[in-house]
Amino acid sequence: MLVCIVAVGSEMLTPFRLDTNSLVITERVNAIGGDVRLKAVVGDDVQELVRVLTAAAEWADLVVMTGGLGPTEDDITRDAVARIMNVPLDVDPRIVDALGERFARRGLTMTENNRRQALVPRGATVLDNPNGTAPGLWIERGRTAFVLLPGPPREMTPMLDAVIRDRLAPSAGGAGLFRRVLKITGRPESEVDAVAQPVYSKWTAQEVPIVTTILAVLGQIELHLTASANAREAADRALDGAVAELQTVLGSSVYSVDGRPLEAVVGDLLRARHLTIAVAESCTGGLLTSRLTDVSGSSDYVERGYVCYSNRSKMELVGVPESTIREHGAVSEAVATAMAEGAAGRAGTRVGIGITGIAGPGGGTPEKPVGTVAIAVVVDGRATIRTVRLFGGREMIKFQAAQAAMNLLRLTLASA
Amino acid sequence: MLVCIVAVGSEMLTPFRLDTNSLVITERVNAIGGDVRLKAVVGDDVQELVRVLTAAAEWADLVVMTGGLGPTEDDITRDAVARIMNVPLDVDPRIVDALGERFARRGLTMTENNRRQALVPRGATVLDNPNGTAPGLWIERGRTAFVLLPGPPREMTPMLDAVIRDRLAPSAGGAGLFRRVLKITGRPESEVDAVAQPVYSKWTAQEVPIVTTILAVLGQIELHLTASANAREAADRALDGAVAELQTVLGSSVYSVDGRPLEAVVGDLLRARHLTIAVAESCTGGLLTSRLTDVSGSSDYVERGYVCYSNRSKMELVGVPESTIREHGAVSEAVATAMAEGAAGRAGTRVGIGITGIAGPGGGTPEKPVGTVAIAVVVDGRATIRTVRLFGGREMIKFQAAQAAMNLLRLTLASA
Repeated sequence: MLVCIVAVGSEMLTPFRLDTNSLVITERVNAIGGDVRLKAVVGDDVQELVRVLTAAAEWADLVVMTGGLGPTEDDITRDAVARIMNVPLDVDPRIVDALGERFARRGLTMTENNRRQALVPRGATVLDNPNGTAPGLWIERGRTAFVLLPGPPREMTPMLDAVIRDRLAPSAGGAGLFRRVLKITGRPESEVDAVAQPVYSKWTAQEVPIVTTILAVLGQIELHLTASANAREAADRALDGAVAELQTVLGSSVYSVDGRPLEAVVGDLLRARHLTIAVAESCTGGLLTSRLTDVSGSSDYVERGYVCYSNRSKMELVGVPESTIREHGAVSEAVATAMAEGAAGRAGTRVGIGITGIAGPGGGTPEKPVGTVAIAVVVDGRATIRTVRLFGGREMIKFQAAQAAMNLLRLTLASA
Repeated sequence: MLVCIVAVGSEMLTPFRLDTNSLVITERVNAIGGDVRLKAVVGDDVQELVRVLTAAAEWADLVVMTGGLGPTEDDITRDAVARIMNVPLDVDPRIVDALGERFARRGLTMTENNRRQALVPRGATVLDNPNGTAPGLWIERGRTAFVLLPGPPREMTPMLDAVIRDRLAPSAGGAGLFRRVLKITGRPESEVDAVAQPVYSKWTAQEVPIVTTILAVLGQIELHLTASANAREAADRALDGAVAELQTVLGSSVYSVDGRPLEAVVGDLLRARHLTIAVAESCTGGLLTSRLTDVSGSSDYVERGYVCYSNRSKMELVGVPESTIREHGAVSEAVATAMAEGAAGRAGTRVGIGITGIAGPGGGTPEKPVGTVAIAVVVDGRATIRTVRLFGGREMIKFQAAQAAMNLLRLTLASA
């Protein structure tokens, strides 16, 4: 199945935005054996979109389009598809009713331009959008199926999954690309690759071949394993073995093989041990506690957080002695430890974390340059302490500092 | 000047990689009046690339290609361009010599496949690559100029800049696209568009035409204004007037016309008024304080944050009376107000914020469904209170709640 992905929207032809929907679409169509041959981004320009779709119709079995289905004049996807099909656009009264109800439920009145979303090229099937106003569309021309999905990822993804499940997977017959992702933190990419490459390089020639890609993202490394197989069972067997081999050589730096983010991994460790946690953060400004609470159900173990941004707040909120700040500096292992102990002590939790560092761009010194972050994890009064040197801009340093703190907590709990 | 950007490389047709070179290319060609109409990503497939280039040659004045210029069999850009030009590939002896020297300097021997990089479609001009082995190419066919650049950004960008400076800018004569972005929050997209569209629709026909794109992102709406003008001064005049007109009709919902994010806007308001702030957050879990501290220099006004995730912590940390929680529930305007007052009172700041809500997916009730968030802003003891109903997943609700709280703070400070 040859696939073309088209993102529609002039904002994605500016220097400010990228189309990221195509990554999800690629993953989903790969899984049912689809081969993405071309990705295109077109502006809010009917003629240009007609040109791209006409060209794609000559070779593609599936054209997945995102965006341009909203209520404004700029939203031209419906019009372009109607043109290449040479069919009129009809108002679908069920869509009008559904839109009216949706607005009424929120106490709003539907404006006239919202009715544009009810226009359907004749012959198209309407695809429900459970998370938004713009319905999707499915329409066929010759060998080519066109799928029109809205641009916002949280609307697009479930609709794509429904199309894959109901319309595309049944004819795929089980063959496809099957994937696993190992997530690793606390080691540099070159070191991970030096260890992993001798292992994964031999998998490309086996009966169920596995291709491995290494991907460095902020604060972590991912190893993407892609098996090409005629059936899920054969792929699963090969991938299970491959994942186990990599875990053996990479050890405890692998924190997830099932897609869970680090915050969920540490959350599960805390919950399994019936522990609650209190966090005292300075340079991360609340980001660590926020990430811990991104996990649904985290109120089971997150008791509270202190954002001790000023020195006064470090003393008042978590009882860091003024003398410790004076002697060691606000960014020091001694202060991080006092913060972790103070947070746990005042909150009455068995686990406490303290983070203090220099997020930059100002505030660095030759001894403690920007990116220096001291982290302490206290479990039942026993402290584990690290100082890390992080690189990048302010937000990147904050993110990596939160990541390093969660990883230190993970390793501490796993070895306890 | 109509522009098409083509990225070549099969890795960018996987779920793991995006083409980001196109953002830089867009910015540079926009600045000299180039209008990017289409972006495409093609794999290492000569036929497919020939198809895309042939189609682009029908309308584009400039086709900028990145990638596919390396030494391996997969690197097919030179071959595809030679095919559409219908010219042979010649070995350029100067490139061979330069490659040989480069390898020798590093104590390496040039492998045979590196000679592929010395192949030049007859009639093309070679573009120097100061940062890598693959030279670039410039070749013209009819109205269309094709520019071939290597994929790695640190090689691509300086070569692009040289092409712009030496070959494209001289004929552009100062003309270009000039941009402004208005950021708006607290109003739905359809309402913003209904108000703004009658204003901006008339600008497309004026002497310096301005095209306006509306872009809904989580928690905010952006209006992108792009003026096409022969000189920066004319564009600035037209854009200043346009921005002022939109601000008049959209009023205080416009929070930024200079690119600043909301956290920087409220930070500047706090700093200008010599105010410091303390935040008490429940459902946002520290995200609001973290976003406030994303701004460099925010330690001037962020004193501290309390993440009161449990009811006990609401009482202990910011003194919410148990009776208030019992009578009104933890998610209530009364509790939000007590949190804001307690945060400011205990921190000794003139500004306090309290946020309490249901981020979901669990915890909703018919009266207080998931997404219900109560927000209080207290300035010098006077409280401004809002309850909002937000939609989406847990992280989206957290983000929008932080956004709504910052906006309430902004409006309170602006009117004080």
